[in-house]
Amino acid sequence: MVKLGEFLCQRLKEAGCDDVFGVPGDFNLGLFNYIVASELNYVGCCNELNSAYAADGYARVKGLGCCATTYAVGELSAVNGIAGAFAESVPVVKIVGGPMRKHFKEMPLLHHTLGDYMTPYKMYEPITVDQCVLNDPRFAARDIDRVLTNCLLYKRPVYILVPSDMPDMEIDTTDVGEWKTPVEPASEPSVLEEALEEVVERLRKAKHPVFVPGVELIRRGLQDYFQQLTTKSHIPYATMLLSKGLISETHPNFMGLYMGQRSLPEVREAIANSDCVVIIGEKLTDFNTGGFTSDFNPKSRIIINYDNVSVSSHSYNQVYIGEFLRRLVEMVPVFPDPAYEYPRAKYGCPNRRDSVISKVDEAKLDMRYIFKKLAKILPEKCILIAETGASMFSAAETMLPDGGTYIGQTFYGSIGYTVGSCLGACIALREKGDPSRRVVLSVGDGSFQLTAQEVSTMIRYNCNPVILLINNDGYTIERVITDNIYNDIQMWDYASLPKIFGGKQGIKATTHGEFDQALSHATSNPDDLVFIEAVIGRLDCNRLLKCAGRMMAMNNKLQPSITEEMLEKEQL
Amino acid sequence: MVKLGEFLCQRLKEAGCDDVFGVPGDFNLGLFNYIVASELNYVGCCNELNSAYAADGYARVKGLGCCATTYAVGELSAVNGIAGAFAESVPVVKIVGGPMRKHFKEMPLLHHTLGDYMTPYKMYEPITVDQCVLNDPRFAARDIDRVLTNCLLYKRPVYILVPSDMPDMEIDTTDVGEWKTPVEPASEPSVLEEALEEVVERLRKAKHPVFVPGVELIRRGLQDYFQQLTTKSHIPYATMLLSKGLISETHPNFMGLYMGQRSLPEVREAIANSDCVVIIGEKLTDFNTGGFTSDFNPKSRIIINYDNVSVSSHSYNQVYIGEFLRRLVEMVPVFPDPAYEYPRAKYGCPNRRDSVISKVDEAKLDMRYIFKKLAKILPEKCILIAETGASMFSAAETMLPDGGTYIGQTFYGSIGYTVGSCLGACIALREKGDPSRRVVLSVGDGSFQLTAQEVSTMIRYNCNPVILLINNDGYTIERVITDNIYNDIQMWDYASLPKIFGGKQGIKATTHGEFDQALSHATSNPDDLVFIEAVIGRLDCNRLLKCAGRMMAMNNKLQPSITEEMLEKEQL
Repeated sequence: MVKLGEFLCQRLKEAGCDDVFGVPGDFNLGLFNYIVASELNYVGCCNELNSAYAADGYARVKGLGCCATTYAVGELSAVNGIAGAFAESVPVVKIVGGPMRKHFKEMPLLHHTLGDYMTPYKMYEPITVDQCVLNDPRFAARDIDRVLTNCLLYKRPVYILVPSDMPDMEIDTTDVGEWKTPVEPASEPSVLEEALEEVVERLRKAKHPVFVPGVELIRRGLQDYFQQLTTKSHIPYATMLLSKGLISETHPNFMGLYMGQRSLPEVREAIANSDCVVIIGEKLTDFNTGGFTSDFNPKSRIIINYDNVSVSSHSYNQVYIGEFLRRLVEMVPVFPDPAYEYPRAKYGCPNRRDSVISKVDEAKLDMRYIFKKLAKILPEKCILIAETGASMFSAAETMLPDGGTYIGQTFYGSIGYTVGSCLGACIALREKGDPSRRVVLSVGDGSFQLTAQEVSTMIRYNCNPVILLINNDGYTIERVITDNIYNDIQMWDYASLPKIFGGKQGIKATTHGEFDQALSHATSNPDDLVFIEAVIGRLDCNRLLKCAGRMMAMNNKLQPSITEEMLEKEQL
Repeated sequence: MVKLGEFLCQRLKEAGCDDVFGVPGDFNLGLFNYIVASELNYVGCCNELNSAYAADGYARVKGLGCCATTYAVGELSAVNGIAGAFAESVPVVKIVGGPMRKHFKEMPLLHHTLGDYMTPYKMYEPITVDQCVLNDPRFAARDIDRVLTNCLLYKRPVYILVPSDMPDMEIDTTDVGEWKTPVEPASEPSVLEEALEEVVERLRKAKHPVFVPGVELIRRGLQDYFQQLTTKSHIPYATMLLSKGLISETHPNFMGLYMGQRSLPEVREAIANSDCVVIIGEKLTDFNTGGFTSDFNPKSRIIINYDNVSVSSHSYNQVYIGEFLRRLVEMVPVFPDPAYEYPRAKYGCPNRRDSVISKVDEAKLDMRYIFKKLAKILPEKCILIAETGASMFSAAETMLPDGGTYIGQTFYGSIGYTVGSCLGACIALREKGDPSRRVVLSVGDGSFQLTAQEVSTMIRYNCNPVILLINNDGYTIERVITDNIYNDIQMWDYASLPKIFGGKQGIKATTHGEFDQALSHATSNPDDLVFIEAVIGRLDCNRLLKCAGRMMAMNNKLQPSITEEMLEKEQL
């Protein structure tokens, strides 16, 4: 026999989660005692939303994350973080310590309650793929295993509610056996073969085939199959924003980012002119497709989803992505057509290691200089995290170094996300035991103000990210749509915050020279958290974002801040 | 004809809300343009949860609050603030700017979405008393009026979703007419008379009648009736935590706070020995009743609720509280029995203006000194806001000055609430045009870390609260239950934060002398935000909280931090 608290911690660990991000509350103290006593590490966050963002960032790196809070007041503060994980298919376990079982029946006017004690549970239902209340020692082990399995299988959040009188209960584990890592279902053999045959045949006949690998490959850890697929076949590929950094962007077949009409012209043409685009596990969201302006030819398009493959207008069901890709690697035709020329990110990407930038020590800093320079110094195998906003749009034009990966909440787009996520990614890298990897975060001032306190947690747990705070005096991503006083924010002395949060000196850079010095400091202090406040102009952002802003203004009949003339003058 | 955006702003203003707390997002920019252009003031907050807390604090002072955010990412960050308003019966209007109507039908993969576009709406349903989607110009005006009416009638939050293509739409207002402030329904005359007769008769016969007025009177603005009731009848009263400061605590009939077994002995006895306790509009929650230890005699107890009156074991329905109290004031017997002695807060309350405290300039500061001293300098008509935790339990023992009122989230108890609430209360006082009133906030470091950034918004909008940051190095309210590493937090240099947030100098006090100086500074700078960091010991809190902590540990079978011996040694 084992106690519920012990079993839950053990299963989390076995499922691949080594750290729990959380905030205590009186209903979860008993449960938290088990977490602290277990092999799991407890990471105390400043607030619950940030702890959910941290669990999300952690899960993107480590494969499974966990956020534990108290009932109602705690979990409802975290709900937007879990909603983001749901939207972006990130496997996060939301654990809640609630009132004791008898109170769920009697529903007294206990603090933290909302009348119906199941209200928070019901609010979590639409944003999680499975839920359980561990209120019965006979079924608790089974429920835990089912819920964790579904989290890993569907790569989406799940919800576990633990009444406060349950952690000490001995539970029945006779039927559950050892932890079994969930595996992808087997494909229907005949359908699989037929689908493979057609896809291979299409690729063989194509003159200009391209791959568009997607975020599903990142979540399911299938990047290696894709790496083999493009390397063996010589077929070039473009990623989308959600799948940026899926495999090393230094791969010779990498053309760059595809974002519909917002792509670089050569990348857009390569996709538009392709006679066989194979989209593998991607979500065709508005940000991914340049506001739904992608031009995949529906007649020649192949889409490989988690559990089906569609070719032109017909589809093969019960074909699963992992097995399909494994087989496709074996069967894919090699494509050494010397006449097939395609763009290469290493020559075309606007911000890359060999970018030429003119530096004038005293020149006022701007976004262009920041990202051109950043591209030159991003360390190998780094994780670049970019906030939804000017940072994300500049990151989209920035080529990652060898082994570098990327995190952004590119679909859900909740501002403030990246600060919590940065904490999670740092802790995950530590767990993966690769101290040579470093997290680099770029976040604007407006977004930063939502979740700023979590920098203190990074200092507390000796994390070593480079945090680039883009001070453009407000919500620039909204300013480029339409501007008004609601886009203004209070000016903070950002560079002094790390000192207050734990004695770390921040750096403020307003010129090329100061920024270069700050980056040098970051590079020569790889084990330290380095916080750089980069001060730029209010509307300073790249053409991509200005295009997006103008489009959003037009779509919503707002007075656009960005005129056609302004766009025409923009450099790429 | 009027545009929807204009009409919504106009109705908010007519319903009594002059300020909107919010955070912009691309889906709400069109709507926000109307807010900015209207007679409403827009108050930009650092994040959405804090904006909801601010709207709640504002509503408690002004009668109606409003929090406006963007869809999903914004509103789901605010959900816990609205849940708190729902639990504590605070009328807050949650306005959301969402995607355009056609997208609600087609549900494309637009940023900020969660599959089913109605998911956020559904999550708000259980924590609001009415909801609407303003997607039809024929019904929008009617929906707005219905929802605002229900907000004011039920004193609970409502939810209004505005698709982004709606604010500019001309809407039909022919049927709605002028704004009508909702009024309490009329009581059923015969029932009313019978109920009055019995209650009056019971009071006439009682030897030791007492009133326990509740929070419902505050929300419904019925304090004056109660003031007349106790003044005319000479019947003494005790408030509970939720109704603290309902009428001036300097009223001669005020006995003090009643909290079941955690009350002062004399107050507890007065209630236990009363032969007629009249509880008027109060929620008998765990914190209100000392963990359900109240001893109201069920045979002699009278409970007046919003829409019914119960006497012993029978009840009168369709009797409404306002009308009942107005009539009761006319009919209540005068009670000049000279033999009836009852405790008086002005002699018994532990922390009060005439408290004697021994001051030793160099002595280390403690919670006892802080609140004894605070009680002496709280300005008349101040609003004391105390965070759930050591602050709330000390505030419970602190007598408010003439006209002073109190705000705390005493039932829902979401830590961090008071920082946002303080912003809201300050803005509300300004709207009420009474510059002589001041907000005094007491908040612990653990709670403060959740929502600290909203201090910058107070500075931005020239608010003048006194913020007392109790630095006890962690979650003391949890430490007194059971202690472990999860109760530790990162130590911040709190006193330096206001400087970073906007150039205000904070003050750090570690001794009696320093604290006295800090309070003098606060008193002599009535128009400035004054931020005082008061450093005390880790387990330093009053006996009330230690009792509560021990009880919670026992109830949840946790290793209690507080032993019986420790309790016995405690001074009151």
